[in-house]
This record gives sequence, structure tokens and C-alpha cells, in this order.
Amino acid sequence: MTKAQNFITLTYLIETAGSPERLAAKIASDQSTGTFVPLPGETEELKNRVAARVVGLRALPPVAKPSFPTHEAGPFNRAEADIAFPFDAIGTDLSALMTIVIGGVYSIKGFTGIRVVDMKLPPEFGTAWPGPQFGVAGSRRLTGVQGRPVIGTIIKPALGLRPHETAALVSDVIDADVDFVKDDEKLMSPSYSPLEERVKAIMPMILEREQKTGKKVMYAWGISATDPDEMMRHHDLVLNAGGNCAVININSIGFGAMAFLRKRSGLVLHAHRNGWDILTRHPGLGMDFRVWQQFWRLLGVDQFQINGIRVKYWEPDESFVASFKAISTPLFSPQDCPLPVAGSGQWGGQAAETYARTGKTVDLMYLCGGGIVSHPGGAGAGVKAVRQAWEAAVQGIPIEAYAREHPELAQSIAKFADGKDA
Amino acid sequence: MTKAQNFITLTYLIETAGSPERLAAKIASDQSTGTFVPLPGETEELKNRVAARVVGLRALPPVAKPSFPTHEAGPFNRAEADIAFPFDAIGTDLSALMTIVIGGVYSIKGFTGIRVVDMKLPPEFGTAWPGPQFGVAGSRRLTGVQGRPVIGTIIKPALGLRPHETAALVSDVIDADVDFVKDDEKLMSPSYSPLEERVKAIMPMILEREQKTGKKVMYAWGISATDPDEMMRHHDLVLNAGGNCAVININSIGFGAMAFLRKRSGLVLHAHRNGWDILTRHPGLGMDFRVWQQFWRLLGVDQFQINGIRVKYWEPDESFVASFKAISTPLFSPQDCPLPVAGSGQWGGQAAETYARTGKTVDLMYLCGGGIVSHPGGAGAGVKAVRQAWEAAVQGIPIEAYAREHPELAQSIAKFADGKDA
Repeated sequence: MTKAQNFITLTYLIETAGSPERLAAKIASDQSTGTFVPLPGETEELKNRVAARVVGLRALPPVAKPSFPTHEAGPFNRAEADIAFPFDAIGTDLSALMTIVIGGVYSIKGFTGIRVVDMKLPPEFGTAWPGPQFGVAGSRRLTGVQGRPVIGTIIKPALGLRPHETAALVSDVIDADVDFVKDDEKLMSPSYSPLEERVKAIMPMILEREQKTGKKVMYAWGISATDPDEMMRHHDLVLNAGGNCAVININSIGFGAMAFLRKRSGLVLHAHRNGWDILTRHPGLGMDFRVWQQFWRLLGVDQFQINGIRVKYWEPDESFVASFKAISTPLFSPQDCPLPVAGSGQWGGQAAETYARTGKTVDLMYLCGGGIVSHPGGAGAGVKAVRQAWEAAVQGIPIEAYAREHPELAQSIAKFADGKDA
Repeated sequence: MTKAQNFITLTYLIETAGSPERLAAKIASDQSTGTFVPLPGETEELKNRVAARVVGLRALPPVAKPSFPTHEAGPFNRAEADIAFPFDAIGTDLSALMTIVIGGVYSIKGFTGIRVVDMKLPPEFGTAWPGPQFGVAGSRRLTGVQGRPVIGTIIKPALGLRPHETAALVSDVIDADVDFVKDDEKLMSPSYSPLEERVKAIMPMILEREQKTGKKVMYAWGISATDPDEMMRHHDLVLNAGGNCAVININSIGFGAMAFLRKRSGLVLHAHRNGWDILTRHPGLGMDFRVWQQFWRLLGVDQFQINGIRVKYWEPDESFVASFKAISTPLFSPQDCPLPVAGSGQWGGQAAETYARTGKTVDLMYLCGGGIVSHPGGAGAGVKAVRQAWEAAVQGIPIEAYAREHPELAQSIAKFADGKDA
């Protein structure tokens, strides 16, 4: 039994007009044995058994502006504090972990900023939780794609299409030889487009095309529902119709529903993290993705949407690169890595930079909406253009040079290179 | 069919270096029909069916400091925008609601601040979801407390006590004639204190006392677990042993697990919102409690912890008062109001202000940890002192005056009135 296996270590970025050291000690105390008054029963033996301890404190330069507004005067002191929680005091339950090492920390008085920036879990978590059922290898096996990124697209508009209208759009993109298609995460099972009717309208086309061509498009269905029993009915509907993937709004359904689904799932679980941004967008507050993603990987996410290079959203490229690295780094084994999914405003023009900045790997899904379906030559040309852009990236050929002999790519550059249309 | 019933209306506090009006329009577009490029199939008819619309925009004074750090120059413009989403585009699923009207909003570029400050749901939500099974009336019936607040206490230390050690503390507080006892929210079912062993050690004492006195202490067991199946086993353990209440870490388990539990529950569900603070602590970011609590009430929270007056945490009194008002205001019927639970640093000294600022109601639980168990006369005197403080509050008698003929209250004042010990 090594000592390192018996602690869960969290790193907190602390910002305060007062003493970061004092606040670090307060986190350790409040989140383990601490209470407001010394109580009978709070013995030294008990403290030794379960008390959290500050095991590292690194001062950072103070900042002039507080992360939380305050009437206190600056500058605001900052430090990164490592706090070790005895594993036995928490166990492997992820909701207990979240409650003890993260949840309560946010309510402590005296911070002008608090962000959880790292979490190191002992190996007990690797055996207690299933992790991805399919992950990178399963996603490749089921799509039949090797040696290049899985190319995907999204059915838009997000809301409002009736099943037959959705089916018409899907027909176009599967004819375009795309590897993967997904429902917009906002589409689940509204009354104007119940999942059952969408499945009935679309799955036969996918199976028919598989019979003709031998290639089965992976379609990610929006099966999320608040009631886990209902989500399972959605899951079964898709599985029984021959489907193999589902979009899960992990942040909206929560840990419990994800655990429930994973235990019973026969589908690749494609995670959309809608809502996550508010927990990470302010650099002095909330949580790093490197912390949050650990929970969801242990719970069983197979494919993880993490934005991409030059996205339409607030997230800067370096944050995407850090997220890619986080989910591509094994927690306990290489099998616990989900397939990274780069999306939002992608059209192929970001392939070279994505490839260069993520360790020159093609183990990812590259998800293009308008970048495929709004290609001037149609969706088929759009898919070709994206594949060409990745061939160029891997071969280290500038995209403009490669486009000279690849007309679909040339058309993409002409349409999307200003960054506004994809 | 009235028009008002067919929309879900959200109010967003928008802050930006640019135009709030433009960003409000972007929210409406992105979260409904919007996409990045005009696509085939995105017809006018479809837009009329599902498009969200900005129905109100109220300019607010600009601020000099941005909520999210930015390199843009201020001042930063602000407005409250009301956006109406057609009900049919979303339906009653709460995870769909969260995904569409809140989740994606946080990722939109161009904000220096974004906070969801109100949400008005049509009556369809009131019939689609169960709401509290017990609520205020059920909590009163099961505790036998009428005409005054339910007085509760918490077993501390939070972590580390073995079942027999916990049982010894519980024995003290139930002898003290307290109405309600709860596990600290951080205590669920760790290996040093499995829930099953705690139930075995404690429930017989509660039942024995009920036989002797006719009064059954409501004990809230920490049944939360990531796996809903495991949480249900915990639930059944408690129910079969004669227990009637559970602490649920709602933010850690998520919507799905709460829905799953509520459908099967025979216990009063006492919600701890651990982790919530990071979503609301920065006034320019995240969400107002008045929005968030609606989800959890519909899902079935019976008792809702909302801090209190002069708590040990960051939350200011006016925020507690607003939360109290929010959960005491019917959404669709008076039965959907949970019992408000005021806690943290409470000892009776906050009774008068709590009573005065929450509409002179005694429909609440008043939860005291150290304020009861660290009373110089013991827990029994602590409970008496808290009841006396509430008698004084309701009768409009200053606490010091009432203490002249109530020695337990006098002792509490002497010990706790500096605000540091309770």
C-alpha cells in the first residue's frame, strides 16, 4: 500500500484580499472534519483518520481586479493550494467526491476568486467506474474509419423540423459519404418531432445505404430526457432500430442519469457539454475542464465535444488545445480516453492547426455543420473538401497548395476562408 | 387557448462592450432556429413555428468593470432582455428546457457578462412534473410541529465518525426534543460509516423514543449516490427501517437522478444545494436562485436549504430573503412550495430578523448546529433556547427582554451573540 494511493488531491486557485494560506486551511477544515465550534467527539484520532491537509501552496502574483466584485481594496493575493483528502473519508462515489472536494468550496466566505484547477484521483476510481464502453477504438470500428479523423456533420436548423423534413436533410448527408451525423443537442424528443418518428423516418435509410455500400453512417440520436426511464426507452428505440450512437446532454441530465444509462447502454455515448461554459469561462472562477472531464470519463463518455480551433463561441484556441490534451491523457488506462470531438465553425480550414497543436494525431472527430452542408458543390463535395484538408494537414502541405489539384477544397477555401460562413 | 400559455419566457441580464440588443437577438436565434449559415429547409413557416423572439429589452446603467475579464475598453453596456420561446419548440422536459434556454447561452461570444434572472413557465409544466410529495404540510404532519418553525440540528463533525459514534451524538439530540436531525450533506455512505450500519445504529433509538413520547424525530439520512439504483437501495433501507426523510445533494446527483428518486420515493426529500454557489455568487454571471429553484421544485424537493440571516458563508442576507420569497411563491399551486430551511450559524439570535424579513411566517425549518449542541446547558437547553427565540420573534419582544425569564435563551445570548460561535 503506497501512500500516494490513499489520497485524493485537489488543486485550488485561491484569490483573496486576505491570506490565501488561511483560506487553503479553511477549505481543508470545512470540507472534512471542520465545523463552527469544537464539538464533543471531534478527537485527534478522528482528525488523523479523515482530515484533509494542505500539502502544497504556491504563491502567484497578486491581481489588481477581483474576480468576484468586492468593496475590499486590492491588490488581491493569489496562490495555488494542493489539498490532500484521505481516500477513505470520501470513497469512490462521484457525487460524494463532487460534494466534498468541490461543491462546498464555492460557498466559503473571503474569496474574491476560487477555481478548481486540478484533481488527482487514486486508482480505486479506475476500477470503481466503467469508463467509456467504446471510446476511440469502438468509434473507429463502428464507423470503419482508420488513419484519418472521423468526419461528421450536424443536422440544422436546431429546432422545428418535422421528422420527414429532417429525413430529407439526412438523406443528403448520408449520400455525401459522411462518417457521422448528429442531431443538434437541442433536439431531443419534442412533440413536433418525437424521437420515435425520427428513428422510423431515418434509420431505414441508414440501413439501406449500409446494405448497398457496406458503410454504416454513425447517427447520434438525441435521446436525453430528464427521466432516466424515459431516456432508456429512447435508448432502446434507437438500439432496436439498428442505431449505434446517442447525443447526451451530460450537464443537463447530471451524474446519476449518466451512470444509469451507462450501466444499460449498447450505444456509443456522444457527450455535448451544453451549460458547462459558465463553470469555466471566467479564469478566476469555477473549474478547469481538466477537472470536470474526469467525472464524465469515469461515468462512460465515449465521444466528447470540446469545441475546436477558431470556433464561433467564446472559447479561445488554447483552451480547446488544453481540453484535447486532457481527454487524450489516460486517467488509469488508455481505454479511458474518449474520442475528442472538434466542432463549431469547422470547415477544413482549421485542420492544419488542429493537427499541429494536438500532438499530430488523427484520433478525433471533426464535426462540420455549414462547412459541409453549405459547400457550393453540395454536401458530398463538402465531405471531400474536409477529407482533403486533413490529407494536406497530415502531409504538411499548405491548404492552398493542396487545393490546386483538389477542386472541392478550392471551393471550400473560396467560400469559408473568411471565417464567417462555416 | 391563451397566447400567454404557449411561451416560455426567460429574462437575461446581458453585459457587453457592444450592443445588448444585438446579443439578445443572437440568443433568440442561436437557441432556436439559428445556425451559422442560411440552410435549405430553414423556411419562414418553420421560423414562425419555433423561433424565439425578444419581447422586451430594458436598458440598465452601464458598468465600468466587466464581469468576465476582457481586453475591450469599457464602459460595458447592460440590459435585461425578455425572450419568449414557443412552448411547442421545447415541451416540458426539464433537461431540454435547461439545454435550450440556459445551457447554450453561456457559450455565446461577445458577452462580458450573462446571467439568467427570471423564467416564466406555462402551466403545462405544473401538470407534467410531480412537485413536492410532502412539502410544508407533510413536513408539519410528520414532525407534529404546528404554529412554530420546525427546529433541526446537524450531526457534526461532517466526516469521520463511525456509526456508533454518530449514534451517541444522535442519542443526545433526540433526547433534547429536537424536531429534526440531519446527516451533514458530506456524509453519504463511506466505507467507515456505511449507511446501512448508521441506520441500524440509530433508527431503533428514534423508534424507541417515539414509543415512549409519541414524538418521532424526523431524521434526514444522506442517501445520495451517483448510481440511482444504489440511491434507491439507500432509500429502501431507510424506509424499511421506519425512517421518513433523506438529504439529497441535488446539484451533485443531477436532474435525472432526482426525477428517478421522486417517482419511487416514500421519503421527505431534503435538498442540500452544495455546489450551487458558483452559479450565482458573481452578480453579473450565472443564474438567479429564482430560476434554478423552479427546476428542483418541479422535480420534487420537499425541504430546500437556502442559508439564512448572518450565515457563515459568502451569501448576503438579502439573497437569502429573495430565495425564501422565491420558494414560498407558488409556481402553479400552493402545494408546489417546499419548506424553506434556514441554516448555517443559526442559534436563535437571527429569529427576529428572519421572521420580520420573510413575511412574518413560521413556515420554515430553522437548522442550528453548534447553536444547539454547543449550548452551555447541553442540547436540550439549546433546543429550548431556539424555541424561546422564536416565541420572542413572533410576539415582537426583543430577545434580551424575553431572555430575562428564559434562562436557556439568556445562556445562548451570552455564548453566541458575538456571532462567532454558533
